Amino acid sequence: MKLTVRYYDLDASEPVVLMHDDDCAAIGVKENDRVSITSIKSTVALVTCSDTLVEKGVIMMPRPVMDKCAAREGDEAEVVYASKPDSVRSIRRKMDGEKLSREEIESIVTDILDNKLSKIEISAWLTALYINGMDIDEIADFTKAMAHTGDMIKFDRHPVFDFHSFGGVPGNKITPIVVSIVAAAGVMIPKTSSRAISSACGTSDFVETFCNVEIDVDSLKRISEEVGGVFAWGGGMNIAPVDDLVIKIEHPLGINPRAQMLASIMSKKVAGGAEYLLVDIPTGAGTKVPTIEEARVYARDIMDLGEKLGIHAECAITYADQPVGSAVGPNLEARECISILEGAKHPASVIEKACDCAGIILDMAGIPGGAVKARELLDSGEAYKKFMEIVVAQGGRPDLKSDDLKPGKYSESIVATKPGYVHSIHNKDVVAIAKAAGAPNDKGAGLLIFKKKGQRVEAGETLFTIYADNEAKLRRARETAMRYPPVEIEGMLIKRVSSVNVRK
Amino acid sequence: MKLTVRYYDLDASEPVVLMHDDDCAAIGVKENDRVSITSIKSTVALVTCSDTLVEKGVIMMPRPVMDKCAAREGDEAEVVYASKPDSVRSIRRKMDGEKLSREEIESIVTDILDNKLSKIEISAWLTALYINGMDIDEIADFTKAMAHTGDMIKFDRHPVFDFHSFGGVPGNKITPIVVSIVAAAGVMIPKTSSRAISSACGTSDFVETFCNVEIDVDSLKRISEEVGGVFAWGGGMNIAPVDDLVIKIEHPLGINPRAQMLASIMSKKVAGGAEYLLVDIPTGAGTKVPTIEEARVYARDIMDLGEKLGIHAECAITYADQPVGSAVGPNLEARECISILEGAKHPASVIEKACDCAGIILDMAGIPGGAVKARELLDSGEAYKKFMEIVVAQGGRPDLKSDDLKPGKYSESIVATKPGYVHSIHNKDVVAIAKAAGAPNDKGAGLLIFKKKGQRVEAGETLFTIYADNEAKLRRARETAMRYPPVEIEGMLIKRVSSVNVRK
Repeated sequence: MKLTVRYYDLDASEPVVLMHDDDCAAIGVKENDRVSITSIKSTVALVTCSDTLVEKGVIMMPRPVMDKCAAREGDEAEVVYASKPDSVRSIRRKMDGEKLSREEIESIVTDILDNKLSKIEISAWLTALYINGMDIDEIADFTKAMAHTGDMIKFDRHPVFDFHSFGGVPGNKITPIVVSIVAAAGVMIPKTSSRAISSACGTSDFVETFCNVEIDVDSLKRISEEVGGVFAWGGGMNIAPVDDLVIKIEHPLGINPRAQMLASIMSKKVAGGAEYLLVDIPTGAGTKVPTIEEARVYARDIMDLGEKLGIHAECAITYADQPVGSAVGPNLEARECISILEGAKHPASVIEKACDCAGIILDMAGIPGGAVKARELLDSGEAYKKFMEIVVAQGGRPDLKSDDLKPGKYSESIVATKPGYVHSIHNKDVVAIAKAAGAPNDKGAGLLIFKKKGQRVEAGETLFTIYADNEAKLRRARETAMRYPPVEIEGMLIKRVSSVNVRK
Repeated sequence: MKLTVRYYDLDASEPVVLMHDDDCAAIGVKENDRVSITSIKSTVALVTCSDTLVEKGVIMMPRPVMDKCAAREGDEAEVVYASKPDSVRSIRRKMDGEKLSREEIESIVTDILDNKLSKIEISAWLTALYINGMDIDEIADFTKAMAHTGDMIKFDRHPVFDFHSFGGVPGNKITPIVVSIVAAAGVMIPKTSSRAISSACGTSDFVETFCNVEIDVDSLKRISEEVGGVFAWGGGMNIAPVDDLVIKIEHPLGINPRAQMLASIMSKKVAGGAEYLLVDIPTGAGTKVPTIEEARVYARDIMDLGEKLGIHAECAITYADQPVGSAVGPNLEARECISILEGAKHPASVIEKACDCAGIILDMAGIPGGAVKARELLDSGEAYKKFMEIVVAQGGRPDLKSDDLKPGKYSESIVATKPGYVHSIHNKDVVAIAKAAGAPNDKGAGLLIFKKKGQRVEAGETLFTIYADNEAKLRRARETAMRYPPVEIEGMLIKRVSSVNVRK
């Protein structure tokens, strides 16, 4: 059927055209079906039917669809029914609990990347993946398919080490410390990180407060090979780009199917050229991995998957029942991170976690001493020297000091109303408060936590201080803190067993 | 945050607003999150983030969203992050295989109807329903929730009988015959039907060729109580309207989750005031219910569900390995249907199925004789008289004759290339050909099938004739028929067992 093309300034996240109900009926398409549109060139688009937004005989299309069929306003286009891509059938097979072939998985990944699947179809795919899962062979195929949607980095220097931390625990600012220690030991570690998805502050969100994280693949390769490491933002490169499209659908559903999560992590490592990989799995209430049992299963999967992908992978299951260190939020985390590299001896939890992780990587690299060696490199200032080399290579100031990073101008301290011991700190509430204060977008926003689990608190002592860049957000963060108190205090005496006090 | 309102002529099937990436980051929303927008009034909308389609400081919204917050072009609106509706958490629980409470099911149904759930969320819901299912209590709650989204018809005349046929078998034109026989016996049967969803011709698609099917609830009630029956289009009334919104998401996925299918059928019966119900379950290859075992499970579910809903339900499992009768397509089916009421003695399959179904209903109504009585009412012309009363009450011509209904002007007959017996007729291919010919939108489009399963065919004899209202569609239908031949012929001798010929 011939229809007249009109430009339509609509939601460009899907290739949707608007057609009159009568024309849809004549062609035999229904809402969310597809049509093939031929002007000078041909393309396929999804249909929205309306009897008010568009006249009969007209097809309204957004700019990307016009470009694809090389049509201009007022042109006539031939519009016919188009069948669904074959990948929809594979999605149906996953709904039915079937194992998918490599070709099927590749076609789903490619069709998502090429914008050939609708939000409805991608949502069904992720839901089926969440419920029915994938076995390790499927996940390996999925990982490779995702990796090959973008650039594949090839290093001239070997071996290539990498490090990844599952998200979920607030204040986890160890990455620049780990990278600096490892690179100081002469081991190349080109580390890319992400920004916050649902957390208060991703690694790139705080690293960008003191140097440029948006570097391209060539710079990443050059700096890594010359200096030994980077802490770059992976999202700015064309590394497994399909992941970003998937996250847009996962996020509103609040799901992260296991197969998708593993393929997402590992595809970036495959594309990034990693040969050795340490994965940190923070485990505890309010993180992505609440129990040790689940962490063990993830660890097993990652190592198996690594084997299938030609990456030697090891895992560290780390304590994450409360935030890592004291600071949560971009400037606050950057300050804490740099101060440790400068020589500060606290917070001990950050130093220990960073040295333990770096130590495992040194072990993998055959450098004797592990965590002890890592601590030496930190204490001796070698790691700090390497850190500054990387910062400068990424465009940071050579005279950078931790004190340059300032918390937000507006602050409020929350004090204990009764004495006792800190019984728990709720990760999710800490994240909610930091986000309410404006993190990760407002760089000064966040919290400093002064009392951690097991510490004694007197009535009137400060538990934590909230920082914000503006007053309204500080108020909002305070309200969040009042509604969901993140720090729980109890008396020391939890339960008396005969005459022995049980200590927390 | 204050943003300036601009009108945006976009896809109105979801309440989507367009905001600049920087404003999204400042508010803390991501693509497909929600914002609360306050101008004179308040509303919630989904967010699409862009750094090209919209300027910083501006929020672009379609007419329905502007109306809901009573904003005009150029107004300032306060835009803040809005959390997901609670029903999203219930959808998550169904993904996790949990049993949902009545309140949870109601909130999902209401939020779909109120346009509060996105396509992504509804797709996840249907996928979870498809995979994890519902137990009979959940389906009963789901049915009631769906029924209460629209009008509830209350009849003054009782008892109220109803009839429903699962779709899937082409040529199933029995509904007007069943209704006419039952009403002729003095039993009230206010029957509403649907148009084709994925089939070539729904009941309303062929009934509307000879009378008006778009009647309102008051007319339905009046005609039913006065004349004894109707054959109206249910889609034009406000009966369980949420179903139409769900179909738009089910259709592109090609799924019809069992729980959704049952609730969809039964909610219309609950809202329609039915007290007694016969459900016809066409069973056979290429229908919704391929095997007798599956049909039995559906029958059990429908009867159990009826009990929980206060409807006495019975089921007829009917033979559906091939089309019912000879005609497929609006005018062709109408002609065949009316000719039987006028006294034609074939196709026998239509007459038998209609009389069997009507017979069960008469049994349920306590009228002795069942199918024999039904056949008497058809043969005596009583059913025809009642049929014409209903047609006239629905605005049809009092001098209606079956021959008034004309097949399409363009036709082509497909002949057998070898002699033999018809081994099978593929329902799905028949549907595909009729749709390619233009059915159900083009009223003359469809097929007449001359040879059914088991019949002898000589080389050169016509198997079926395709009709279309225009030449291009006839060509398209012929191509479909060549690619997917719907009639399969084999020699009589299928397999010789000792010296006895095995007869099909």
